[in-house]
Amino acid sequence: MAAASGPQDIGRLVVSCPDQPGIVAKLTQLLGQHGANIVSLDQFTTGPEDGTLYQRTVFHLPGYAARKESLEADIQTKLAGPLDMQWKLTDASKRKRVAIFASKTDHCLLDLLWRHRRGEIPMDVVMVISNHPDLADQARPFDIPYFYVPVTGDKKEAERKHLELLNGNVDLVVLARYMQIISAEFLDEVEVPVINIHHSFLPAFIGAGPYQKAKDRGVKLIGATAHYVTKDLDEGPIIEQDVIRVSHRESTPQLMRFGADVERSVLSRAVAWHCEDKVMRDGNTTIVF
Amino acid sequence: MAAASGPQDIGRLVVSCPDQPGIVAKLTQLLGQHGANIVSLDQFTTGPEDGTLYQRTVFHLPGYAARKESLEADIQTKLAGPLDMQWKLTDASKRKRVAIFASKTDHCLLDLLWRHRRGEIPMDVVMVISNHPDLADQARPFDIPYFYVPVTGDKKEAERKHLELLNGNVDLVVLARYMQIISAEFLDEVEVPVINIHHSFLPAFIGAGPYQKAKDRGVKLIGATAHYVTKDLDEGPIIEQDVIRVSHRESTPQLMRFGADVERSVLSRAVAWHCEDKVMRDGNTTIVF
Amino acid sequence: MAAASGPQDIGRLVVSCPDQPGIVAKLTQLLGQHGANIVSLDQFTTGPEDGTLYQRTVFHLPGYAARKESLEADIQTKLAGPLDMQWKLTDASKRKRVAIFASKTDHCLLDLLWRHRRGEIPMDVVMVISNHPDLADQARPFDIPYFYVPVTGDKKEAERKHLELLNGNVDLVVLARYMQIISAEFLDEVEVPVINIHHSFLPAFIGAGPYQKAKDRGVKLIGATAHYVTKDLDEGPIIEQDVIRVSHRESTPQLMRFGADVERSVLSRAVAWHCEDKVMRDGNTTIVF
Amino acid sequence: MAAASGPQDIGRLVVSCPDQPGIVAKLTQLLGQHGANIVSLDQFTTGPEDGTLYQRTVFHLPGYAARKESLEADIQTKLAGPLDMQWKLTDASKRKRVAIFASKTDHCLLDLLWRHRRGEIPMDVVMVISNHPDLADQARPFDIPYFYVPVTGDKKEAERKHLELLNGNVDLVVLARYMQIISAEFLDEVEVPVINIHHSFLPAFIGAGPYQKAKDRGVKLIGATAHYVTKDLDEGPIIEQDVIRVSHRESTPQLMRFGADVERSVLSRAVAWHCEDKVMRDGNTTIVF
Repeated sequence: MAAASGPQDIGRLVVSCPDQPGIVAKLTQLLGQHGANIVSLDQFTTGPEDGTLYQRTVFHLPGYAARKESLEADIQTKLAGPLDMQWKLTDASKRKRVAIFASKTDHCLLDLLWRHRRGEIPMDVVMVISNHPDLADQARPFDIPYFYVPVTGDKKEAERKHLELLNGNVDLVVLARYMQIISAEFLDEVEVPVINIHHSFLPAFIGAGPYQKAKDRGVKLIGATAHYVTKDLDEGPIIEQDVIRVSHRESTPQLMRFGADVERSVLSRAVAWHCEDKVMRDGNTTIVF
Repeated sequence: MAAASGPQDIGRLVVSCPDQPGIVAKLTQLLGQHGANIVSLDQFTTGPEDGTLYQRTVFHLPGYAARKESLEADIQTKLAGPLDMQWKLTDASKRKRVAIFASKTDHCLLDLLWRHRRGEIPMDVVMVISNHPDLADQARPFDIPYFYVPVTGDKKEAERKHLELLNGNVDLVVLARYMQIISAEFLDEVEVPVINIHHSFLPAFIGAGPYQKAKDRGVKLIGATAHYVTKDLDEGPIIEQDVIRVSHRESTPQLMRFGADVERSVLSRAVAWHCEDKVMRDGNTTIVF
Repeated sequence: MAAASGPQDIGRLVVSCPDQPGIVAKLTQLLGQHGANIVSLDQFTTGPEDGTLYQRTVFHLPGYAARKESLEADIQTKLAGPLDMQWKLTDASKRKRVAIFASKTDHCLLDLLWRHRRGEIPMDVVMVISNHPDLADQARPFDIPYFYVPVTGDKKEAERKHLELLNGNVDLVVLARYMQIISAEFLDEVEVPVINIHHSFLPAFIGAGPYQKAKDRGVKLIGATAHYVTKDLDEGPIIEQDVIRVSHRESTPQLMRFGADVERSVLSRAVAWHCEDKVMRDGNTTIVF
Repeated sequence: MAAASGPQDIGRLVVSCPDQPGIVAKLTQLLGQHGANIVSLDQFTTGPEDGTLYQRTVFHLPGYAARKESLEADIQTKLAGPLDMQWKLTDASKRKRVAIFASKTDHCLLDLLWRHRRGEIPMDVVMVISNHPDLADQARPFDIPYFYVPVTGDKKEAERKHLELLNGNVDLVVLARYMQIISAEFLDEVEVPVINIHHSFLPAFIGAGPYQKAKDRGVKLIGATAHYVTKDLDEGPIIEQDVIRVSHRESTPQLMRFGADVERSVLSRAVAWHCEDKVMRDGNTTIVF
């Protein structure tokens, strides 16, 4: 599923456009004309009629850095224009710059930092921001700056501080059990995707206290959901979900503990896939190649 | 998990009562005094204080049929009275009498009938009732009476017919994708538990069209839920749930097909556990031993 | 995962060849020149150097039946020759002709026949062959010819009878818990793929009595494996596997019963994928698109 | 499944003996006479005839510490003698003292240390021993002594050093991907259980290089197994296993990475269950309550 950090000269072309005959041929031919060899190609069309085509093509192109500009120009004029195509061309050797927001629980933050250190996820974690100082000691061994930004009274002030810290210099914000609702204004201004982990199998148990709700309802599986954050709480496009079996024997604190294992693995998978340009949004759902 | 049909001389004592010290000792001692040897014992207390104790004890008692009455008398006077205990004593060799309600889709009905024929579930299926004639041919090889009771206009008439057919002569009603809402009056009059299979991971996607709702929400797992039917639609105590992984590639009809496999296995497990006296209700949740 | 029966004018081109730049472009361009629109495309290369490329391309081509011959000619001369390519072009509307071999246990056979009747697997089951008469009654409602071919003493005679019945007229043989070892001679002469379901998680518990072996070893999961049959018992390329959780509580007969549920679903998935031309052999392993 | 650290006055009585009528009653009655209230009771008999009974009883006994000795005396004379019973009485407030052996890979070690710090597992990690210095930095934030004991040439010398460090002062040794074969002599002398994590779904892929073997065999699931170490390599009683789905797409290094997630969770569960006295050996298998 995931080569951690792309080697040299590997590019990724991610596109979407109204479906019509010949798109794959045109796209792969254009890549070929520029000297690229296709490493992998994933493609999906949402429907037989009036469908949208989504495609992710990974290719090897010797001297990619020097030739990228010319390739971009051709994609724009020969494909994007005629085919009404949205597109993004990335360089697998350029890791995504990520800011992680955390609160007091450590499991999601630690799992991301640990995978980062092992090189499992092609990202550079550039900072951790928390509304509590508690996790600073745990982040320290990973050599990541830790900013304590209390959220008291007026949340706007904290968010202004967040934007100053981010400073337009990250590609992704990850809410690793941050436990604060993000304002619509922040989402507008941050201008990069924000991934959240919700501690239930959405759309079940939206909002606060999902493990207690799960206990009260007597479900036999509990889960976690990683999704892009939108202005509607817990309603954004789902990237990944998973569940674990429980029974009447588990108390709510035990559900929380078991659920933590699901949360950390679901969030780490979602972040890895995002950083590998594998996730595309289709309305309020996702295509994950 | 499931001995299909209990051998001779195996009894099951299922009890619940306010927790206090000494209950297990008193109960096992009384069984011992009657000559019973404990085969298995499951026990659970809902909380350290003011908790309710639930216990299921399976025992071997030579000549059980002849000695059951005397055992019942002692349980009532020596345990149930002093301990404020709800209890049920069953005979593993007596299979539950089950009526299955179906509609047009065959997967849940057939899975139950297959398992019944193989002796996997300790039940006798005494009739199939359907609001459509479609599945009669499929039920025929199993030698089970199939009653076609159309539901048109006034549902009450159909339900009156159902009660006539059941005639107070079944221990359990199973809704195997019956697709009709059961009235509160029917539930009052049928006087036996009713198990339903809902085609989603409850409490997500309550009500009609759950697979379409799942497609629209873009979930990455779909599920099914077996529960006891209460007067609140899809809100009864959950007995069993399971899920299966899906992706953007599956259309709604494909979700329905994949989900059917989950539905049939979840329902069959729930019915088996019920027929083995393994399921106890605790408020709106279940204890499954 | 599975469109049951392909609609009209849908073709599938499945190829493998030594990897080199430009293959995807050449192939999709050639399809485009013949008027085909790509519906889905899956592609995989076994390694960066000296790798083998595997590709499955599903396309829509109006008037496919009439134009297939000309397409085949072009694939042979323009792709297969120059690229040293193995290829197969199939018609999604042509269902595979399948013979199922069974013995005495019904679960795998019934699951395949039931999915066949529902149209879930794009196959025509043309006969059931068994070394026992036991399942004839169960196959009858599905209107499939059932041939009882006892295997006594000299197995060669039974296999000669099998080949007469098959008569070169099937595309696939499925061993649905047939429980007899297939001779190398039969495999040579039948000339179509043979899929078997083994009742363990291979390579654990090769050979007879896997559930007893699993009980003795005390494993916490039991499984099933669908694989192509080769001359080495239980050593052929694995198509699909799955497992289910068990504990010390299950006796060997209960492991067999739980395992049966895994066997039937694993075998049905493997057969469906094969019939949709999704499975390619790569040495002694499989690529499943 | 697991209260991390037992509260005060909670005891656990774990017994096994030849099955006969009345054991549960006698045992629970004796506990009651000493003033204990049963919190949970799990019981299992290996077979209807000549079976062995295993039972784990958790009880609350006010003033347990002061009354334990008298309880032990009664268990020995009134139960263990007459019933030929093996037994162990533990105090839930006394955490097991654990030594972790590691090598160069961090995932199993860190997962145990994380859970230890969160109080998820009722253990005190008293030391980490490694044949490499690599993980010392990672263990340091947890304030656990880290001993680097190189294994070169004569393994006996390293093992002598290990025994000196352990000094008869631990209750459990955990091999967290230690990657060295433990000698029979060490097992004899250490006198406490040793739990190992093997990086495959045993009994598949015994010995070295299981992920490469899994890749070569083309399995569709990979797994991990936690087991007690015995003198036969990878043949000891299995405590826990789990698997994860893979496909042809994963290279061997990717299988190793995915497998690491399974290894760490399987090992952590096994260690937690052991520390809660939930695991009993039955020949070469385990009962896990």
